[in-house]
Amino acid sequence: MQHALPVTRAGDFAGWYQAVVDQADLAEESGVRGCMIIRPWGYGVWQRMQEILDRRFRETGHENCYFPLFIPLSYIAREAEHVEGFAKEMAVVTHHRLKMIDGVLTPDPDARLEEPLVVRPTSETVIGAAFHRWVRSHRELPRLLNQWANGVRGERRTRLFLRTTEFLWQEGHTAHATAAEAREETARMLEVYRSFAEDVLAMPVVAGEKPAHERFPGADNTYSIEAMMQDGKALQAGTAHYLGTNFAEAQSIRFQTEAGDLAFAHTTSWGVSTRLVGGVVMTHGDDDGLRLPPIVAPRQVVLIPMLRDKPEDAGVLEFCAALAAQLNQTQAFGEPLRALVDRKPGRAIDKRWAWIKRGVPLICDIGARDVAADNVTYIRRDQLRNGDRIQSQALPRQHFVEHAGALLGSIQTALHESARQRLAANIRPDLDTFEALAAYFRPGDEENSGGADFRGWAKVAWARPEGGEALAKVTQQLKSLKLTVRNAPLAQEPITGHRCVFSGEPAREFVLVGRAY
Amino acid sequence: MQHALPVTRAGDFAGWYQAVVDQADLAEESGVRGCMIIRPWGYGVWQRMQEILDRRFRETGHENCYFPLFIPLSYIAREAEHVEGFAKEMAVVTHHRLKMIDGVLTPDPDARLEEPLVVRPTSETVIGAAFHRWVRSHRELPRLLNQWANGVRGERRTRLFLRTTEFLWQEGHTAHATAAEAREETARMLEVYRSFAEDVLAMPVVAGEKPAHERFPGADNTYSIEAMMQDGKALQAGTAHYLGTNFAEAQSIRFQTEAGDLAFAHTTSWGVSTRLVGGVVMTHGDDDGLRLPPIVAPRQVVLIPMLRDKPEDAGVLEFCAALAAQLNQTQAFGEPLRALVDRKPGRAIDKRWAWIKRGVPLICDIGARDVAADNVTYIRRDQLRNGDRIQSQALPRQHFVEHAGALLGSIQTALHESARQRLAANIRPDLDTFEALAAYFRPGDEENSGGADFRGWAKVAWARPEGGEALAKVTQQLKSLKLTVRNAPLAQEPITGHRCVFSGEPAREFVLVGRAY
Repeated sequence: MQHALPVTRAGDFAGWYQAVVDQADLAEESGVRGCMIIRPWGYGVWQRMQEILDRRFRETGHENCYFPLFIPLSYIAREAEHVEGFAKEMAVVTHHRLKMIDGVLTPDPDARLEEPLVVRPTSETVIGAAFHRWVRSHRELPRLLNQWANGVRGERRTRLFLRTTEFLWQEGHTAHATAAEAREETARMLEVYRSFAEDVLAMPVVAGEKPAHERFPGADNTYSIEAMMQDGKALQAGTAHYLGTNFAEAQSIRFQTEAGDLAFAHTTSWGVSTRLVGGVVMTHGDDDGLRLPPIVAPRQVVLIPMLRDKPEDAGVLEFCAALAAQLNQTQAFGEPLRALVDRKPGRAIDKRWAWIKRGVPLICDIGARDVAADNVTYIRRDQLRNGDRIQSQALPRQHFVEHAGALLGSIQTALHESARQRLAANIRPDLDTFEALAAYFRPGDEENSGGADFRGWAKVAWARPEGGEALAKVTQQLKSLKLTVRNAPLAQEPITGHRCVFSGEPAREFVLVGRAY
Repeated sequence: MQHALPVTRAGDFAGWYQAVVDQADLAEESGVRGCMIIRPWGYGVWQRMQEILDRRFRETGHENCYFPLFIPLSYIAREAEHVEGFAKEMAVVTHHRLKMIDGVLTPDPDARLEEPLVVRPTSETVIGAAFHRWVRSHRELPRLLNQWANGVRGERRTRLFLRTTEFLWQEGHTAHATAAEAREETARMLEVYRSFAEDVLAMPVVAGEKPAHERFPGADNTYSIEAMMQDGKALQAGTAHYLGTNFAEAQSIRFQTEAGDLAFAHTTSWGVSTRLVGGVVMTHGDDDGLRLPPIVAPRQVVLIPMLRDKPEDAGVLEFCAALAAQLNQTQAFGEPLRALVDRKPGRAIDKRWAWIKRGVPLICDIGARDVAADNVTYIRRDQLRNGDRIQSQALPRQHFVEHAGALLGSIQTALHESARQRLAANIRPDLDTFEALAAYFRPGDEENSGGADFRGWAKVAWARPEGGEALAKVTQQLKSLKLTVRNAPLAQEPITGHRCVFSGEPAREFVLVGRAY
């Protein structure tokens, strides 16, 4: 069967991913190592995510603000002393001027900054410094902040959206009077992420706690949502950290309690990034390109007028314009539906395939015959093919207009359900010895076997090693299988009588293990 | 008369500005030189501006996208050769790693970037490089892009919002097949800015063309909107540039025309920034703090329950909640009205003054008596005082709910009208010799005379010197009076018989001159 993309998921998953990102007009390499250009269609998806998340953050009492891009080296140094294993790959600004020297533009040696500045990898330090200034009394707590910003991290192997030097994200930062409130906040935001992934991105996830050795440096607890991509690998799609009083102690965020004592605040942080766009691609894409969950599709219905340089053309264009206007007055998912007439020059068949690759949920070719019959012929992107045939359906115009919102709802559900089944079917619950785990996950020639190497995840018993030799042994075992512990799913039944699949010690919980992005 | 701020506009305009920005919770210094923290209320105002501008950009056919923060030095070098007078104050990233050396965290000498990266001051070069890759044929033109981003410029004297090292902004970048289309685009976006400033920010502006010596480096024409602040100084509030084929030639943005020839594209760029927040402060603020045009107020109505630790308190809170819910179901300016109940701990009188200083258009103190009478007592922020008295009015609740949208409309109009009158009354049209100009604008002791030094602008005849000695003389004359040419207002009648106020040469147009931020 011929597909729209030059590579298939089964043939070469990594190559397929790149092809979708390119052919769906999502993003491209910029020429600056590891930094991407987010093209309009890709940015449109991100902007939809932003709108919906921003509303949910507001509904949970958070306020947006903006903190500086640059962090003085001394802030990072304070942090570095405080936190073992602090990542040190970061972009460092050392000069504030360029100068033409012997015809070559160079950083001006006379314009060296007294203190180098780091381009923010994350903003705990700079927001903590503000909390230090702002928080005096328990009456000013909680402080619930969020910022939409760019961040920069040194990534060795970069991949569009999934791992980029510069990324766009939101970072929530909150300060609370008590541990209980801060823990409640962490759980609340993890749940915001979980429901957003499921209900908006149609991307099933498992919410859980990261093991100690995968915590954010400085966190008491790190939680994540983990999604299963179509190659069986895990994508960490969002994290929420309960930071205890660690950052408050390092940055002196103290307040007067109701009883009049001085106490350290309990802080949290949580974030999701443009990585989610990559998650949508690898959850829903097929060999014909992207398939977008209708809620985040910048355009939900695209009308393509089939013009033949004949007198009927005017009628076709008029029909399309009227239909789009009608559709845009209806609702989908409680918002105005987003329909577009593609009036750009070009052949209708090329335009159809371009929109298929971009993942528009409903694509309508409108010809003179449709106009005459007052019909709408449409393709559901989630039901593109019937065997080798492209599958299209027709409805009377008025009927289509009335049902477009419901059709989009059904596409959203179908994408979610199909991904949900994949996740549910691909977590092995029965690998209860390291030998069984090793036999299943034995590293093969993954780089070249493409999607054929699908193995999903395993749910295994875990003794929670927290350091020392025990942990060293376990991480070695995991590494030998190219596995990582993704998380310990929330709300587990108490575990009894199981032994840790790695150490053989009595297990304390189940964790998910798998390969990951 | 006692005012809410410690300094008045007349006493010390610059100090007053700082006080408003601080007391209205808009922004603060961050500790990183020239970079500000935008606090939630200030960010809320910016986010309102973003929402409305973003809609207008979309309505005029633009697509959002995102380009990298970092620009390779070689791109800037190409530009620097091409453009004389290229500003070279910029933040330069030279290292990609930090290292602990003898206990001190420093840029790792082994992690020097092969090519330094500049933190974008503006994105013409990096977007031009993308246009070079993307544009092949006239069929792909126009390309109409916009991005919401942060930018960094080396500013010597910084001031919150008005001139900061890091700023938030939008930058539009477009490529067109013909000069006419690109000029039309430039004019269209200048008009978007003009109408946004007037209708949304209630900030009267003059749209016009910058003189040659004030053009953006590399532009054929630069246009601006200029607003008059309450100290009579001009604020350049937005710019739009017609770049001709200058950038296209430097970056090889070429396309095949309909006739089959290769031609350079004509490009434009245009932007507004967080500077607009400073413009709103200096246009509408008074000695009691900020006054926000209702359209951009994050909250338009704030209800303050007056609680007395008595049984009636529950009823007051209930009344407030119901009233806010009712208000939020009404419309103002074609959108849902934004009302809030301030339930934070604290005395009602302190809260009232906090909201007055933040500039909320309608502030309602709700006490047990209001509940009993089913009344709403409210303060119009634009009519705060009657002599020494704070002026409040009362309306039956239902009446208030029904008229809240109209009240907000009337506040928006009143702020606009008052600013409009100030602008109209303070442009001297009669200074037709340099001596007259010099007598009027004779530099005094501005730094210490505060707002008392109000002089507004002058509209003077101008011969358009474009370089050489003539220009040198004129800029010297302007400098001696601390003046700059703001712009030549659009749509002027042809000028005849006038002589340039500076050179005495035959004048070609009128320009506005004034002191500026």
